[in-house]
Amino acid sequence: MSANLTYPQFFERLRQIKSEKGLTFADLAQQLGRDELFIAAIFYGQAKPEPEDVENLNKVLGIDYVGEYLGEHYFPDRGHLDPVPPQDPILYRLFEAVMVYGRPIRSLIHEKFGDGIMSAIDFRGHVEKVEDPKGDRVKITLDGKFLPYRRW
Amino acid sequence: MSANLTYPQFFERLRQIKSEKGLTFADLAQQLGRDELFIAAIFYGQAKPEPEDVENLNKVLGIDYVGEYLGEHYFPDRGHLDPVPPQDPILYRLFEAVMVYGRPIRSLIHEKFGDGIMSAIDFRGHVEKVEDPKGDRVKITLDGKFLPYRRW
Amino acid sequence: MSANLTYPQFFERLRQIKSEKGLTFADLAQQLGRDELFIAAIFYGQAKPEPEDVENLNKVLGIDYVGEYLGEHYFPDRGHLDPVPPQDPILYRLFEAVMVYGRPIRSLIHEKFGDGIMSAIDFRGHVEKVEDPKGDRVKITLDGKFLPYRRW
Amino acid sequence: MSANLTYPQFFERLRQIKSEKGLTFADLAQQLGRDELFIAAIFYGQAKPEPEDVENLNKVLGIDYVGEYLGEHYFPDRGHLDPVPPQDPILYRLFEAVMVYGRPIRSLIHEKFGDGIMSAIDFRGHVEKVEDPKGDRVKITLDGKFLPYRRW
Amino acid sequence: MSANLTYPQFFERLRQIKSEKGLTFADLAQQLGRDELFIAAIFYGQAKPEPEDVENLNKVLGIDYVGEYLGEHYFPDRGHLDPVPPQDPILYRLFEAVMVYGRPIRSLIHEKFGDGIMSAIDFRGHVEKVEDPKGDRVKITLDGKFLPYRRW
Amino acid sequence: MSANLTYPQFFERLRQIKSEKGLTFADLAQQLGRDELFIAAIFYGQAKPEPEDVENLNKVLGIDYVGEYLGEHYFPDRGHLDPVPPQDPILYRLFEAVMVYGRPIRSLIHEKFGDGIMSAIDFRGHVEKVEDPKGDRVKITLDGKFLPYRRW
Amino acid sequence: MSANLTYPQFFERLRQIKSEKGLTFADLAQQLGRDELFIAAIFYGQAKPEPEDVENLNKVLGIDYVGEYLGEHYFPDRGHLDPVPPQDPILYRLFEAVMVYGRPIRSLIHEKFGDGIMSAIDFRGHVEKVEDPKGDRVKITLDGKFLPYRRW
Amino acid sequence: MSANLTYPQFFERLRQIKSEKGLTFADLAQQLGRDELFIAAIFYGQAKPEPEDVENLNKVLGIDYVGEYLGEHYFPDRGHLDPVPPQDPILYRLFEAVMVYGRPIRSLIHEKFGDGIMSAIDFRGHVEKVEDPKGDRVKITLDGKFLPYRRW
Amino acid sequence: MSANLTYPQFFERLRQIKSEKGLTFADLAQQLGRDELFIAAIFYGQAKPEPEDVENLNKVLGIDYVGEYLGEHYFPDRGHLDPVPPQDPILYRLFEAVMVYGRPIRSLIHEKFGDGIMSAIDFRGHVEKVEDPKGDRVKITLDGKFLPYRRW
Amino acid sequence: MSANLTYPQFFERLRQIKSEKGLTFADLAQQLGRDELFIAAIFYGQAKPEPEDVENLNKVLGIDYVGEYLGEHYFPDRGHLDPVPPQDPILYRLFEAVMVYGRPIRSLIHEKFGDGIMSAIDFRGHVEKVEDPKGDRVKITLDGKFLPYRRW
Repeated sequence: MSANLTYPQFFERLRQIKSEKGLTFADLAQQLGRDELFIAAIFYGQAKPEPEDVENLNKVLGIDYVGEYLGEHYFPDRGHLDPVPPQDPILYRLFEAVMVYGRPIRSLIHEKFGDGIMSAIDFRGHVEKVEDPKGDRVKITLDGKFLPYRRW
Repeated sequence: MSANLTYPQFFERLRQIKSEKGLTFADLAQQLGRDELFIAAIFYGQAKPEPEDVENLNKVLGIDYVGEYLGEHYFPDRGHLDPVPPQDPILYRLFEAVMVYGRPIRSLIHEKFGDGIMSAIDFRGHVEKVEDPKGDRVKITLDGKFLPYRRW
Repeated sequence: MSANLTYPQFFERLRQIKSEKGLTFADLAQQLGRDELFIAAIFYGQAKPEPEDVENLNKVLGIDYVGEYLGEHYFPDRGHLDPVPPQDPILYRLFEAVMVYGRPIRSLIHEKFGDGIMSAIDFRGHVEKVEDPKGDRVKITLDGKFLPYRRW
Repeated sequence: MSANLTYPQFFERLRQIKSEKGLTFADLAQQLGRDELFIAAIFYGQAKPEPEDVENLNKVLGIDYVGEYLGEHYFPDRGHLDPVPPQDPILYRLFEAVMVYGRPIRSLIHEKFGDGIMSAIDFRGHVEKVEDPKGDRVKITLDGKFLPYRRW
Repeated sequence: MSANLTYPQFFERLRQIKSEKGLTFADLAQQLGRDELFIAAIFYGQAKPEPEDVENLNKVLGIDYVGEYLGEHYFPDRGHLDPVPPQDPILYRLFEAVMVYGRPIRSLIHEKFGDGIMSAIDFRGHVEKVEDPKGDRVKITLDGKFLPYRRW
Repeated sequence: MSANLTYPQFFERLRQIKSEKGLTFADLAQQLGRDELFIAAIFYGQAKPEPEDVENLNKVLGIDYVGEYLGEHYFPDRGHLDPVPPQDPILYRLFEAVMVYGRPIRSLIHEKFGDGIMSAIDFRGHVEKVEDPKGDRVKITLDGKFLPYRRW
Repeated sequence: MSANLTYPQFFERLRQIKSEKGLTFADLAQQLGRDELFIAAIFYGQAKPEPEDVENLNKVLGIDYVGEYLGEHYFPDRGHLDPVPPQDPILYRLFEAVMVYGRPIRSLIHEKFGDGIMSAIDFRGHVEKVEDPKGDRVKITLDGKFLPYRRW
Repeated sequence: MSANLTYPQFFERLRQIKSEKGLTFADLAQQLGRDELFIAAIFYGQAKPEPEDVENLNKVLGIDYVGEYLGEHYFPDRGHLDPVPPQDPILYRLFEAVMVYGRPIRSLIHEKFGDGIMSAIDFRGHVEKVEDPKGDRVKITLDGKFLPYRRW
Repeated sequence: MSANLTYPQFFERLRQIKSEKGLTFADLAQQLGRDELFIAAIFYGQAKPEPEDVENLNKVLGIDYVGEYLGEHYFPDRGHLDPVPPQDPILYRLFEAVMVYGRPIRSLIHEKFGDGIMSAIDFRGHVEKVEDPKGDRVKITLDGKFLPYRRW
Repeated sequence: MSANLTYPQFFERLRQIKSEKGLTFADLAQQLGRDELFIAAIFYGQAKPEPEDVENLNKVLGIDYVGEYLGEHYFPDRGHLDPVPPQDPILYRLFEAVMVYGRPIRSLIHEKFGDGIMSAIDFRGHVEKVEDPKGDRVKITLDGKFLPYRRW
C-alpha cells in the first residue's frame, strides 16, 4: 500500500485529516449523499463504502489512497468491539438501555411482528439532536428489517 | 402480601393475565395513557408506575392487588439483566447494533452536543412497525436527555 | 395450564412421552411433514410450531395440552444456551469446527457473496448419516439466507 | 527463513499476493485439486498442506519460500481463535446456529448413530452459494466421521 | 421411573449403595468384566453401559431399576464438568499437569504421529497404584486413538 | 546475555536449531540420558535442566550459550499457560479427558490411596506410540507421587 | 502534532513535568481556579479542560503544545479503566466500599429522592485529608445530580 | 431459631416490617443514635450491630428475635456482592465514578498522605440530599482511616 | 443417614451446636488434641478427621451421628471455594497478600530451596493473636513441605 | 531518567545486577537492615523503599540511579498481579491454601478478635526454611494488624 499504513493507522489518519479540515460527519454525509452514521461507520472500519464513495472520499479529504485500503477486496472486520460490557460512559448507557429494556422490546416485537428478530445487517441508524427547553435530547434510531423465523 | 407471590411470580402472573385476556401492550398503553414500552417495562419489573397507573392496571386486569406489589415503597430492581453478552437472538442483535456502531455514534454525539452522554435514566423508547414492500421494518427509538460533563 | 408444568418440565415430558412411544424425530418429522431438526428444535424449546403442528403433535403423542404451552402466544426463549464454550463433547466439536474454520468460511462468503452474513434466522439445518466403509459420517448442513449489509 | 517473516506476517502476505493476483480460493482449489475451504484454511494457518500443495502454491503465487514456512516440520497452531463468543457478525451467527440448535443436533446424532460424536479432525467442510429467487442462500456443510465412545 | 429420582439423585444413590455394601470400583470391575475407570465413569454419569452391564449392575447392587435410567435411550450428558479451572485439589493437579506439559506433549505427538490429535472419544484410561519405598505413586494412563487431520 | 535474546526468543531458537539439525526429542533424550517429555519441557521453558544437561545441550546443538539462559539462577516461569480452557485441539482433548473423567479418577485415588492427591511436582510423564491394526494409539502416562493430607 | 506523542505518552509527559517542577495537584488547582480532582482527571485523560484551562496549563507547565492534544476536538476516551475488579489496593478498597455498601446506599437514595440515580456525569468529587489524633482520615466526596426516572 | 428463618429471609422480613411501619432509615438512625448508612447496612447483613442496637431494634420494630440472628456470635458475611461489574443502574454509576476517577483519586491520596490506602474497614459513609435549584444533588461521603504501608 | 441431612446442612448443624454450647475452636482443639485450624477445617468440610477425632467430636458435641457423615468413606470435597477473587473482605485481603507478595515469595523460595514449591497438601496452618500496644496483630502461618521438581 | 528505562526494564535490571553479583535477598536484607521479603518486594515494584534504602541499594549494587526511579515521588503500582487464579505452580498453591482454609481462618479471626480483618497494608511477611528429616519445610508468615469494623 502506497501510504504504508496498517488499517488502524489508516482509519486514525482519516479521522485526523477530517479533523484538520474542520469537517463534520454531517458535512461529509451531505457531500457523499449518504447518512451520517454510515459515513462515521466507514471512518471506524465498520462499514464498506461503494466505489463512488471511495472516489468522493478521496476528493473531499484531498488524498488519493482511500481505494488502496477500502477498495473491492476490502471487507470490514467488524469484530473489534469495545470490551463487553463497554467501559466508556456513552457506550455503557447505550448498552444499559438495550439491556434494561431488552425483554420489553422483545415482547413488543413479538406482539407486532410474530416470531423473529430485527436485523442488525439489513439495518440503518441515525443520531439526531432534538432541542428541548428542559435540555436537548439525543434521539437514536435503530431501523432494521424484520426477519421471521422459517418453518421447515 | 395478599396474593402471596414473590416478585418474579407476580410479574409472570401479570403477563399471564394479560395474555389470557387477549390484551396487547398497545391496548394497555391506550387505556393507561402511557407509552407501550413503558407499560411493557412495568410488566418486566423494569419501571415504576405512578399511583394512577396502579389503579388503572387493577381495573384493566380485573384484580385488586397490584398496589401491594407496585405501591409507594416499590422500587424496580433493574439489575436482573440477561447474561452479558445476551444469548437470546433478539437481544443479541440489539447488543450487536449498539456495539458495532458504538464508536461512530459516540463521534456523532460529540460533534452535535460536545462532551457528554445520552441519559439512560431521563429516557424513553419506542418500538414501531414500519410497513415496507421489501419486508416490514422494526424501528426502535432511543430518546434520552443529553447530559454534559461538568467543569468544576 | 391444565398440566400445570413449567416450560422446562413440559419439554422434558414431551421428550419422555416420545421416548416411551419409541418414536424418533425422523418418525415425527414424517408424520408432521416437517424437517427432523425443526421438530427436534421444538422439543427443546428452540422453535415455534405452526398451529397445525400443534394439532399433529397432540395426535401423535396422544395428549391434548400441547396448545396450552405452544399456542399462539408462545414465543421460544432461545437464549438458554449451554455454557460458552460448551462442555458437552458433541457441542464442543461443533463449536470447534466453526471456530477453527471460521475465518476461512468468512473469506469464502466474502468471495462468493460480498459484504454480508449467513442468516441464522431465515435458516434451516439438517443432520444426515452417510454410510462409509471407512466409518460412517455425520453430515450437518447449515443453510441460511445471505443478507447483504446495506448502503444508506 | 529467507523471507524473514513471522508466521502471522507470512499468512498475511500469502493473502495479499492472492488478492493482488486477483485469485479466489475457488481458483486455487481448482489449480491445486483440493477443496476451497481446505485451501482457505491453509491461508489462515489452520491446515497443513501436503508437499505437493506446497509446490503448487509456490507456482501459482509466483514465489519460492512457501516450503520454508509450511514444510515437513510445520504443524498448524490451531488454537488462535477469535474471542469466545466471537464478535464478528459472520462468526457470531455460525456460533449462534450451532448453539441454538446444539441440543437438537445432539439428539439426532444419538438417534441415528448411538453414543458418540462428529469428529472435528477427520472432517471436511464446504461453503456453497445456492441461487434462490427469494434471495441467495449460503449452504455450509460440516462433514465429520462418527466416532463412537468405546466400552472398556 | 419407578424409583422416581432425578439423574443426579440416581447416581448419588448408586454410589451410596456401593458404599453401604462395601464395594470398591475394583470389585465391580472384576464382577462386570470391565475396567475400573469405565465403571467409575458410569457411576458419575460420564459413560454409557452396555445392556449386559445394566443387568450385572442390578445383580451386584441388589436393585432392579438400573435399566430404567441407563437403558437403551440413555445417553450420558457429559457436559456437567467442574468449574474451569477446577478448584478441587486433585482435579486441579491433573489440569495443571496437562497444561504445564501441554505444548511439550503436543510436540511429541507431532514428532511421533504427524498432524493430528489423541482422541478423547475412542479412549480408555487407567488409575494404578505403584508401590515405591520413597512413597507410593499414582500412575494415570490416558490411551486414545490417534486421529490424523484429513487432506481434502 | 551474549546471544542477546529474550527467553521466548531463546526457546524459539533452541527449537529451530533442533529442527534444522533434524533432531527429534527422542534423539535428544537418548543423547542426554533423560526422558523425552522432560527434554521437550526444557525446550518450552517448563523444566529446569541439571548442569550436565546444559553441557550436553550445548554439545548436541553445537552452540555455547545454553548456560547463560538455563544456568544456576534460572528457574522456569511455568505460569505461561495456554488460555483456559485451551483452544488448541490437541490440548483441548487432553483437558476434556481429565475433566470428563476427573471425578471418577478422584474416586479411584480415594479408594486406592485414601485422602490425598497425585503430585504434579514430584511427577514424570511419557508419550508413547502404540501400534494397532485398527489405528495407532497415543498412550500418555501421568506418574506422580501420592501425597496424603496430614492430620495436625 | 508538534510533540509527536501518542495520547498515553502525552499524559505521561504532563505528569512527569508536573513532578519535575515539584507541583502538586493542589498547586495546579489553585492556579487554574479548578478543583483538584478535576485537574487530576485531566492529567489522566478522564476530563476535558476548557480553552482557558488549556492556556493556563501551558503557562504553568512552561510548554506550548497542550492545545494540540486537549483542544476543541479532543474528547476524553473514558473507557480505559483498570481491570474489573481492580487489583490495585487503593482502587480495590474504593470498589469494595461502594459494593459492600451499595444496596444500603441505594435504599437511602430511594427513601430520600425516589426512583432515580446519582449521576456520574453531572458530577464532581473531592479528596480531603482530615487530621485525627487516632490517625488521619481520607474523606472522599461523590457529588452528583439526582436524576429521576421519567414516566412516559 | 425461634422465627425459623434463613438469614436472607430474616433480613427481608426486617425490611418488610420497617416498610409496613412506615419507618425510614433516618427514623431508625435517630432512635438508635447511629448513622443512617450504618443502620441500612445492618438491614442488608453488611454490618454487625452492638448489643444495645439489637435491643433497640427489637423495641422499634416490635419483635423479640433480633438477638437470635444478630447476637454475639453473628458475623456479617459481607461477600454476597452484586455481580461485578454491577448491573443495577444506581450501583453501576457508583462503580463508574470510582473507576473513572480511580487513578486521579490515587494520585491525590499519594500527594496528601504518602504510600498507603483509605481503609474500607475503619470506615464510615453518608448519603445526603443537597437541595439545588438546578436539581437536587446526591452527596455521598466515603470516610476511611489512612493506612500507611509499613517499612519492615 | 440417621440425621437425614445433606452435607452442607450437616456442617451448618455442627457449627450451630458448637455455637450453642459456647465452644470455641480453641476449646475443641484442646479436647481433641489437634490444631485449631485443622478442627475448623473439619467444620467447613475441608479436612478429613481420623476415627478417634470422630469419636471425640461425638462426645464433645453430645451427638452420635458424626461417624455417619465423616466416617471411613468420607472424603472432603475441597473444591467448593468462594468466588475467585473472593468478595469477602477477610478472604480478599488474604488473597491480596499472597498475590501482591507472590513473585517476591517465589524468589525467596527459589533462593532458599531451589526449583520446587511449598506443598498445600503436606501442609498445616495456624492463626494466632499477637498482642501489641499499637494494635493487636493477626499472625497466620502457612507451613508446607518443600517439594522439588524431579529430573527424569 | 538517566538510565532511560521503563519501570519493568528497571526492575529487571535490578534483579539482573543482583544475580550477576551473586547476591541473595538474604544478603541484601542484612546489608540494608530490612526484612528479606520487603527487599524482594522492592525488586518487583511492590514496595516503596525509604530514602536510606535507596542510598544503600545504590552502594550495594554499585550503581547511582536507583533514586531516579524509586525516589520521593515514586509510588508502587501494586495492581500488576498475575492472572487470577494464578497459573504459576508456586503461586497457585499459595492461592489454594488461603482459599481452601479461608473460611476456617475467618472463623478463627472472628473467635479471637471479633468483627474485623487482618490488614494487608499494615502488614509484614516472612519466608523461612525449616529443616526437617522427613523433608525441609517452607514456613510463610503473614502478619498484619487487626482492624475492627467501626460502629458509627
